[in-house]
Amino acid sequence: MSDAFLAVDWGTTNRRVYRIEQGRVVHTERDGKGVTAVTDFEAEIRGIRAMVGDLPMLLAGMVGANIGWRLAPYVAAPAGIGDLARHLLRIDDRTAIVPGVSTLANGRPDVMRGEEVQLLGAAAAGLVPADALLVQPGTHCKWARLAGGRIIGFTTAMTGELFALLRGHSLLAPQLTGAVSANDAFLAGVEEAKRRDLTASLFAIRAARMLGTRDDADAAAYASGLLIGSDVVARLAGTPPDTVHILSGPELGELYSAAIRANGHAASLIDSHAAFLAGIIAIERQSR
Amino acid sequence: MSDAFLAVDWGTTNRRVYRIEQGRVVHTERDGKGVTAVTDFEAEIRGIRAMVGDLPMLLAGMVGANIGWRLAPYVAAPAGIGDLARHLLRIDDRTAIVPGVSTLANGRPDVMRGEEVQLLGAAAAGLVPADALLVQPGTHCKWARLAGGRIIGFTTAMTGELFALLRGHSLLAPQLTGAVSANDAFLAGVEEAKRRDLTASLFAIRAARMLGTRDDADAAAYASGLLIGSDVVARLAGTPPDTVHILSGPELGELYSAAIRANGHAASLIDSHAAFLAGIIAIERQSR
Repeated sequence: MSDAFLAVDWGTTNRRVYRIEQGRVVHTERDGKGVTAVTDFEAEIRGIRAMVGDLPMLLAGMVGANIGWRLAPYVAAPAGIGDLARHLLRIDDRTAIVPGVSTLANGRPDVMRGEEVQLLGAAAAGLVPADALLVQPGTHCKWARLAGGRIIGFTTAMTGELFALLRGHSLLAPQLTGAVSANDAFLAGVEEAKRRDLTASLFAIRAARMLGTRDDADAAAYASGLLIGSDVVARLAGTPPDTVHILSGPELGELYSAAIRANGHAASLIDSHAAFLAGIIAIERQSR
Repeated sequence: MSDAFLAVDWGTTNRRVYRIEQGRVVHTERDGKGVTAVTDFEAEIRGIRAMVGDLPMLLAGMVGANIGWRLAPYVAAPAGIGDLARHLLRIDDRTAIVPGVSTLANGRPDVMRGEEVQLLGAAAAGLVPADALLVQPGTHCKWARLAGGRIIGFTTAMTGELFALLRGHSLLAPQLTGAVSANDAFLAGVEEAKRRDLTASLFAIRAARMLGTRDDADAAAYASGLLIGSDVVARLAGTPPDTVHILSGPELGELYSAAIRANGHAASLIDSHAAFLAGIIAIERQSR
């Protein structure tokens, strides 16, 4: 094969396809054909090759989950680029799926699938040090510790999902319609989170309305600060000052930055797109 | 008036009416006419008197909230029987609503409405000491500290509501269909709660399924233990051994008892029905 391949970042609801030649992206496609929208994966694979190029393909993300195409078993942490490359699920001689990573290191089970490519790519590309703490905010927020460029442990928090549940279905929902930014209300929520008493802090949002102690326009920002702050303080309380490298878009990145700084640590925003590409290119190279 | 009156425990979804003579219940009615099911409260009041007796009435609970009949402003803690009796919202010369109680004592706003009658009644009837820690498990779990028979501070946790949200709407919902009892899985959840990292502990329920480390039949009990344990540890961590008096039915009472004992404290189950009656009778007496 030539030094060209197709990389697919195939998530639950979205899909990105990259044609990579000599370590550079020469073409990109993005669509809404996440794994939950696909039934015939072989037809999709043929379609991608017809559209973007008849090349070897490396797939990452939920495509390797039980809701995806084929189950690519987790590799146990510590895991680096080489470990993932050695444990690719090979569908045929030019199609393979990158495995996820699992851990029991924190005394509880945890899994990731897709995030590992970004995390390891960030170190491989020198976007973060080989020994670093990284966070990927979102529905299920991932915190990972790298050592020597490998994932040695990680923790997932349901931060984003809880916020969506509260906004969509809870007693607090009518109060949580306002905008969220890293404003004073957000920082007040981050401060409250240091009490590590989330279920009571949440009810206080309701009580603040009854007693008129906070304008409801600020309630969503406060709740966001409380949830993100709970995540940050659980990860960082009692640890020496460090830099947390944030892999995310600017909006969530700004919120996590503010919460991390309010807990006495430094925050640095990393380009998650560049990290994914560096990771998938490194895995492809080591898999040959 | 004679020494007879009607007491109404008027909640969001249910209503209980008691005819009380010389401090004893002589007749009880219970129905589903909670405040959200009622539009014409004056007609309901006439109906109750026609059915149970043409007597003075003392109403407690959500009937005094903004979703009820008339807003009975909160009394700020510390608050005892006498404070509530002095601040009744008098509708007419023989109809009054018991106010709720508010606090800012824990550095955050909190409110209760209806629970205060049970809490103060438990002490008035000698069911608990005048200085005691009480808990009322439920959708919004109340923890109250009494001193000298008065409520000096309290905290509400959204414990039950969060469990319902997770069971009804979250990614974990398909795993949370099993029975909940104070079994080993419940106690494992209580133990995990000591980490005070609820959002990550919740995701581990998902990861346990992916890695096969826990049978999903145990997931609901584990999640319940995690949520109730989070509530208990936030209230009791670092406090000297004490007895927590639980005002609840046997099912939630057993779960809270187990979680409280697992955190090194004693638990005692109190008859919440008897506590309400003692409270409303004491308020009526002091209001004359």
